Amino acid sequence: MMVENKELSLQTEGSCDITDITPLVKRNVETSGINNGTITLFVPGSTAGLTTIEYETGLLRDFQDMWNRIIPQNIPYEHNKAWGDGNGHSHMRASMLGPSLTIPFINKKLSLGTWQQIVFVDFDNRPRARRIVLQIMGE
Amino acid sequence: MMVENKELSLQTEGSCDITDITPLVKRNVETSGINNGTITLFVPGSTAGLTTIEYETGLLRDFQDMWNRIIPQNIPYEHNKAWGDGNGHSHMRASMLGPSLTIPFINKKLSLGTWQQIVFVDFDNRPRARRIVLQIMGE
Amino acid sequence: MMVENKELSLQTEGSCDITDITPLVKRNVETSGINNGTITLFVPGSTAGLTTIEYETGLLRDFQDMWNRIIPQNIPYEHNKAWGDGNGHSHMRASMLGPSLTIPFINKKLSLGTWQQIVFVDFDNRPRARRIVLQIMGE
Repeated sequence: MMVENKELSLQTEGSCDITDITPLVKRNVETSGINNGTITLFVPGSTAGLTTIEYETGLLRDFQDMWNRIIPQNIPYEHNKAWGDGNGHSHMRASMLGPSLTIPFINKKLSLGTWQQIVFVDFDNRPRARRIVLQIMGE
Repeated sequence: MMVENKELSLQTEGSCDITDITPLVKRNVETSGINNGTITLFVPGSTAGLTTIEYETGLLRDFQDMWNRIIPQNIPYEHNKAWGDGNGHSHMRASMLGPSLTIPFINKKLSLGTWQQIVFVDFDNRPRARRIVLQIMGE
Repeated sequence: MMVENKELSLQTEGSCDITDITPLVKRNVETSGINNGTITLFVPGSTAGLTTIEYETGLLRDFQDMWNRIIPQNIPYEHNKAWGDGNGHSHMRASMLGPSLTIPFINKKLSLGTWQQIVFVDFDNRPRARRIVLQIMGE
């Protein structure tokens, strides 16, 4: 059994920018010394999150529309009144979606469906340089 | 420390069909060679998800009503315009709920509450044959 | 590789009471015999959940307002009709947010952002004595 710590760095546009990180996650699993186990992805930060989606233009737009509908930007937030940075909605969306994702892999192959991609969603209201912690554990 | 890979197969009705998979998950933990550790459940697919709920007729109905309210089926989705399969809402619900669940177990006993069941929720708009990846890791 | 099982106990006020458990989680990681690995947090119970947030007065209020907006208390729930305990909304919120959280740590340091705290959210409609299962796995 082993633990390997890795990290992804990416530049996002913010405002619900959705990045497909599947190829980067795959490569990190394939080049690790571990054949069977889990990869835990974690976002250090409180205005971004992780999930899976079929990475297809229509659904990406639908996903952004959904957040605008459920947790709108243009309603009053106490956070914005206190700090003036206008990203209260970003914090709410990130807390709702969650900062972590755990994916099993078997013989170095991630257990994803054919039409399922791992995405990093940056909810902040400005472009950001981001990092994602990857931890691979198994044997 | 060991890793054991298992899989569940189930047939669902779709349309927010909620299956209690607790007995199957329990049995897999009990028959494994591992006493203390985590079981990671993962859905390969982008129109279903996992969570826990008190598996009680009223709450199952409330859960379905909640999704119809928050992420309705009958609003325009770009995905539906492009692909015509009418399951844009299924994708949104699955991405919101999330594809993975990690549950610790101690002396082969899952850390669930008395009134808490593990459920697989099929958001797709038709019956589906599904599989769920189970990975047990520990010692 | 090792597994260590721990537990937190806390008293909450219910009604979306948000407790910052970061210091307790940190201490458990630091006093464990494990340097690199993951800590899995799990709520045994179906009316509370876990996530991360910037633990700041404005955002805590915004988070409570968000739940009142998305999953209101004062709409009809089948659960309430059947059981009369009035916490149908608590169950829905808990199932939506999710009962588990997995956080990697490296050299005993949790991979949290500077303004990111781990919170336990008690959605139930009354004060509760709660426990949270912590499982630390790694090497």
